[in-house]
Amino acid sequence: MMTSNSASAREFPADSVGLVTPEALQFDQPLALECGSHLESWQLMVETYGQLNADASNAVLICHALSGHHHAAGFHSVEDRKPGWWDSYIGPGKPIDTNHFYVVSLNNLGGCHGSTGPSSINPATNKPYGPDFPVLTVGDWVDSQALLADRLGIRQWAAVVGGSLGGMQVLEWSLRFPDRLRHAVIIASTPKLTAQNIAFNEVARQAIRTDPDFHDGRYQEFNTIPRYGLRLARMVGHITYLSEHSMGEKFGRDLRKDHLNYGYDIDFEVESYLRYQGDTFSESFDANTYLLMTKALDYFDPASDFQGDLPKALAQASCRFLVVSFTTDWRFSPRRSEELVDALTAAGQRVSYARIKSSHGHDAFLIPDERYEAVFTTYMQKVAAEVEAGEKR
Amino acid sequence: MMTSNSASAREFPADSVGLVTPEALQFDQPLALECGSHLESWQLMVETYGQLNADASNAVLICHALSGHHHAAGFHSVEDRKPGWWDSYIGPGKPIDTNHFYVVSLNNLGGCHGSTGPSSINPATNKPYGPDFPVLTVGDWVDSQALLADRLGIRQWAAVVGGSLGGMQVLEWSLRFPDRLRHAVIIASTPKLTAQNIAFNEVARQAIRTDPDFHDGRYQEFNTIPRYGLRLARMVGHITYLSEHSMGEKFGRDLRKDHLNYGYDIDFEVESYLRYQGDTFSESFDANTYLLMTKALDYFDPASDFQGDLPKALAQASCRFLVVSFTTDWRFSPRRSEELVDALTAAGQRVSYARIKSSHGHDAFLIPDERYEAVFTTYMQKVAAEVEAGEKR
Repeated sequence: MMTSNSASAREFPADSVGLVTPEALQFDQPLALECGSHLESWQLMVETYGQLNADASNAVLICHALSGHHHAAGFHSVEDRKPGWWDSYIGPGKPIDTNHFYVVSLNNLGGCHGSTGPSSINPATNKPYGPDFPVLTVGDWVDSQALLADRLGIRQWAAVVGGSLGGMQVLEWSLRFPDRLRHAVIIASTPKLTAQNIAFNEVARQAIRTDPDFHDGRYQEFNTIPRYGLRLARMVGHITYLSEHSMGEKFGRDLRKDHLNYGYDIDFEVESYLRYQGDTFSESFDANTYLLMTKALDYFDPASDFQGDLPKALAQASCRFLVVSFTTDWRFSPRRSEELVDALTAAGQRVSYARIKSSHGHDAFLIPDERYEAVFTTYMQKVAAEVEAGEKR
Repeated sequence: MMTSNSASAREFPADSVGLVTPEALQFDQPLALECGSHLESWQLMVETYGQLNADASNAVLICHALSGHHHAAGFHSVEDRKPGWWDSYIGPGKPIDTNHFYVVSLNNLGGCHGSTGPSSINPATNKPYGPDFPVLTVGDWVDSQALLADRLGIRQWAAVVGGSLGGMQVLEWSLRFPDRLRHAVIIASTPKLTAQNIAFNEVARQAIRTDPDFHDGRYQEFNTIPRYGLRLARMVGHITYLSEHSMGEKFGRDLRKDHLNYGYDIDFEVESYLRYQGDTFSESFDANTYLLMTKALDYFDPASDFQGDLPKALAQASCRFLVVSFTTDWRFSPRRSEELVDALTAAGQRVSYARIKSSHGHDAFLIPDERYEAVFTTYMQKVAAEVEAGEKR
């Protein structure tokens, strides 16, 4: 599909959105936050794919997960070898079909990919926010995304879509702004974390916070980063993203060399892989953002305002739901999705559910898979047909 | 069962082995190790419970797990509030009944509870071994335990018993010294680690080794310990010892205070518990020992000398086997035990297997449970009856 002679002559695959350019949108309206604080002015880094139709009824919002960002599809330059993180599912003819939809993808507030976050300059001090950046919640993100929708002239999303922590944002959209979305697509997610989920997050946080280079979150002022802490956080996270089976398939007990070290160099392939994942991540991701994202995960619990009665919480929604889970996902197992589906059903909501057989664990939501694609495509085609029917009316 | 008036007047429970005194046994015969190195002289810290019979046929060896030691049962002083780590299963009338058996429990070589290990003085340098202590294998431990048996005048164990890493030692005994044990009791164990198991161990090792206070393992010379690294290692380990269910039952999403912090202090009970577990452990356990124990776990793979053919490896054994697993153990799941049982069966070995329903995850092997006790007791009574029949012959 690609020409291989020269980068400048490169053609992108026919089902790619092609070259895309992120845009920084500045918001000078204060954003009140759940913690009680607020952001006076803030910026969101945004990408869009496809064309907004005349009545702005074909917009789809993509909500990203823990380490995600605005660059969900396409390429930033002809030299780019790797497309956006959800390129398999966004593009012409793909499940989120840019021939039909205007797709909006952003880096969430608190992120480290261009949106205002802990590494941004705090206008009050002219230094990076660092630990003074407020702890955000999924609700705060949805509020900021609603202001983004206003800015883009989108009164109602055709669909809001996300996996994992992204799925929590989708669910929150359905409850906070019931009339501003027609469909909620919640993939590999959960209505709340378990104690074990929180425990893993806490290990990641403690790894970062007890790294001497963390400096109580002011590492930028010390011109350093808590590299080892962030590396450990990612290593532990990464284990939870893969299934035991996929790790076994990928690495088994394969040795790096043909003999054991009887020492602490790398013996097994899986050790090498984990160290590499940790190293790469620690060079590219902000530690304070990582902390903030894990707290947003821990805090998410829409039932908490309803004495733990999830169906009661979900009664507020008026959109239709697609919920998707993956069999070997042990971070947010199918049981978590089914809890949500059962509660939606009990709340009288319209919900479709697919439990996809996959060996890829939690990461399955990012990976091409025939049945997942089929379910996703079919659902989104229905959404697109509704958009077209609406236009014709 | 206990008098509550004064410590000095304290009576131990009737089914306790009561006061016990560990003994340090010195070995001045060189021990050749799998890594190619050897220990010139070495010490094992040992406890025994019950009486060795005239023909030394009633001895049971207890093999400990990662953070275990010689103190498996009874109390070290009348002030002791907590008995040994396996006191629920060792004592008069308990599954390993000290009315019948002479029980031997040791701290393995490389340990940090009195046996020669990384924090011992290296006679060659007059400094602590630290990182110069050789990496040991399960096979090395079994070799040292065989010399311990010689010292105690035990030619053949009535049974060798252990959980988790202890179970690996039991299995290794059955292959390395087939005629030196009559029964092998392998609990919550596995014939080899999976990639995921190794990955968790690697995270723990990296947490320790990247702690600036680790000093390449020479922290004792710097008069410090890699406290935060060891703390993280234990936190991550601890999550894998509990089941998702038991963590949920124990803590759920219970808050420490009646409101969220919107910060990085403790919000949830599970965070507090994990930090406490990590702190306590990091004060009491040696980091180099932790590293060594995890490597012994990773390396264990009796099939590796037989091109991965586990039944072929197991064909060497001649003892009888009891294998026990626990339903919610996800560190070494029932499937791992069943792999072993299937391979033993394929090798024509005599094996009994019990899959115990428990909500306690991997830790279940340490916790009182009616069905587990019943299975364990019944099996050990048969072993005791054989001992008695042998004595009468």
